This record gives sequence, structure tokens and C-alpha cells, in this order.
Amino acid sequence: MQTFSVKTNRRTEMIAITSEVTTAVRALGRRAGMVTVFVPHTTSGVTINENADPDVCADMAMALERLVPWNAGYAHAEGNSAAHVRASLMGASINLPLVDGLLRMGTWQGIYLCEFDGPRTRNVWVY
Amino acid sequence: MQTFSVKTNRRTEMIAITSEVTTAVRALGRRAGMVTVFVPHTTSGVTINENADPDVCADMAMALERLVPWNAGYAHAEGNSAAHVRASLMGASINLPLVDGLLRMGTWQGIYLCEFDGPRTRNVWVY
Amino acid sequence: MQTFSVKTNRRTEMIAITSEVTTAVRALGRRAGMVTVFVPHTTSGVTINENADPDVCADMAMALERLVPWNAGYAHAEGNSAAHVRASLMGASINLPLVDGLLRMGTWQGIYLCEFDGPRTRNVWVY
Repeated sequence: MQTFSVKTNRRTEMIAITSEVTTAVRALGRRAGMVTVFVPHTTSGVTINENADPDVCADMAMALERLVPWNAGYAHAEGNSAAHVRASLMGASINLPLVDGLLRMGTWQGIYLCEFDGPRTRNVWVY
Repeated sequence: MQTFSVKTNRRTEMIAITSEVTTAVRALGRRAGMVTVFVPHTTSGVTINENADPDVCADMAMALERLVPWNAGYAHAEGNSAAHVRASLMGASINLPLVDGLLRMGTWQGIYLCEFDGPRTRNVWVY
Repeated sequence: MQTFSVKTNRRTEMIAITSEVTTAVRALGRRAGMVTVFVPHTTSGVTINENADPDVCADMAMALERLVPWNAGYAHAEGNSAAHVRASLMGASINLPLVDGLLRMGTWQGIYLCEFDGPRTRNVWVY
């Protein structure tokens, strides 16, 4: 397993990690099969989305804030239940194919760490 | 593949299955790689979320009920379309890394079966 | 890796691809382990849901349209941010177990390509 960490800057933020994942995959040294990108957290997630226009990420962050409002009569005393729900909506892992030692994705796909309770330092596991 | 079943008690419920999954993984006898936890159902899902405060699960159940209301003019005659939508939002499987024969997760992560149309007996596949 | 493509007909549409995936899995020639179904796009996704009543898919499409409205003050100039968000909610891949060379799923489970910005031709990767 390879790991790296990411510093986030805001409460809600989508951070591109495609190049870090690519480096980690190279270090794994596998040639084929499947790679998993996993975040060992419960208020952040990982997703695949457009790598071209950063507005897409801003829109996604806004849409998730609207879907699961920060204040909505939650019971959890820490006050960050919305972050937990958003994390489960995105999921804690994604899978990608590995062909001839290289990660294969669609032309417009990029990998994003989804911060829902930042700023924090987050870990990413690649295996 | 290892399997186990879980009895659910309410229509919407998040049930901790981390220890059952850990036992299943031990029975698989693999030492490294990836483990998948899969539910062979269409009105339940599986997710990773906080294992400490049970209020997080209650908040997540409430948030999903609000996101996808039970009555909203659905066409499906069985009347449980909301459960189908919630199941797809959570997903039917999660992946976890296996290192030295042990499941690796974040400190606060637990595995939850998401019941959206209970009470029922649900099956979980680990492979 | 095996690939196939799917022609979609509407902007939002759930298209059954279970039989195409089954054929692709047969062509992979693997006997056991895990199979991933992956869409290399950022405005479509893949999910598992009920294979019996097509109303479930229609209800799911409607619920996702309601959850993430098409017009909601998005910044992305292409105007399809809702499709990007819905794609991340469903996810770009699913995993399924392979036993004795056959895909294993629940009785009521089917595999669906989720089109959120059609009509288009979409690719599906199976590995």
C-alpha cells in the first residue's frame, strides 16, 4: 500500500489528487488489475469528476451543501453530521483499472478528495 | 466468498457490521490485497461511517429520509421507490484494504449495512 | 479489459447493461475474484438496482432530477453541472463477485448505466 496526505483549506472543498495517485500507483509497481483509492476518514470522501473546468468542483461543493444542509436539527454533538452524510454520499473509495502499469481513466476524468469538514490534513491510501 | 446475514428492525436503520466483516475476512484466509463487502439487495446498501457516536447513524438515516421522501409521486407499484433510490445513493458495495491478513480502516471508520425497507433479513457477501 | 458502448436516448436515463456485462465477463476468462464495471465519463455513472419493474428506474431518474435540479445557479459554463453532481452521487464504478467464472448478484439486482447528459454514446469498461 502507498499513502500520501493532503492539506485542505476550507470546510467544503474538492481537491485534485490525480497526480499524487499516479505517483503512488507507480510506486506500487503493479502492472495490471485494479487500483483502489481510499480515504480513512468519515467526514471526507473521494470521487471522480471533470478535470478541466474548476467550476464543476465549485458547483459540486455547492450542490452537496444544498442537498445536506449544515444545520438541520442533527443529534450528533460534534455538529458535523452533514459532513458525515456527504462523505457517505460520495463514498470512501474509488476503483480504477491498471493497464501496462498505467492508470486508465476517461479523458475528462480526474480524482478528487472531497473535504467536508476542513481545514484538516487528510490521508489517502492507494492499494 | 464468505457470507452472513443480518436481521434489521426498522424501515430505515444503519446496522454496524464491522465485527461480522472482520470474522468473514479471517475465514477468507487471504493475507493482502482488497476485500469487498457487497449486499445482494436493491433496497439496502453498505457504507463506511463513524463508529463512535451512534447519533451519526441516526442523523444519516434522517438525512436520507429527508433527501428522498417516502411519498413523492413514484410510479413503482410496490411503493418502496425511495428505498431503491437511497440504496443506489449509498451503493451496494465498499472496498477495504487487507494488510498482513488484517482489514485496515481509519480509526473512526466502521462498516454499516443500510436498511431502507425493513424490517427484513439481509445477506452480506465478503470476497 | 473488455469494453462495450451504449447509445442513450434521453438526457436522463437508466439503461440496463447486465447482459452486456455478462458477455464481457465471459470474454475476460477469469474464474474467480472481483469484476469492476467502470464508466470513463463524468456526466454518467453506473449503479445496481432492481431488474424487474422498469418503474423503479423511472422513479430513480425522477428522484435524482429533483435532488439535483438542472438549473440552480451553477457556475460551469457548459450548463451541465447537475449531470456532474448526479454522476458522482451514483459513482463511476461498481464491483461484483465472480464465482466459478460466473458473475454473482442478488436475484433482483441488475446493472444500470446512468445517463445524465444524453443522448450520447457511452463506453463501459469491464476489468
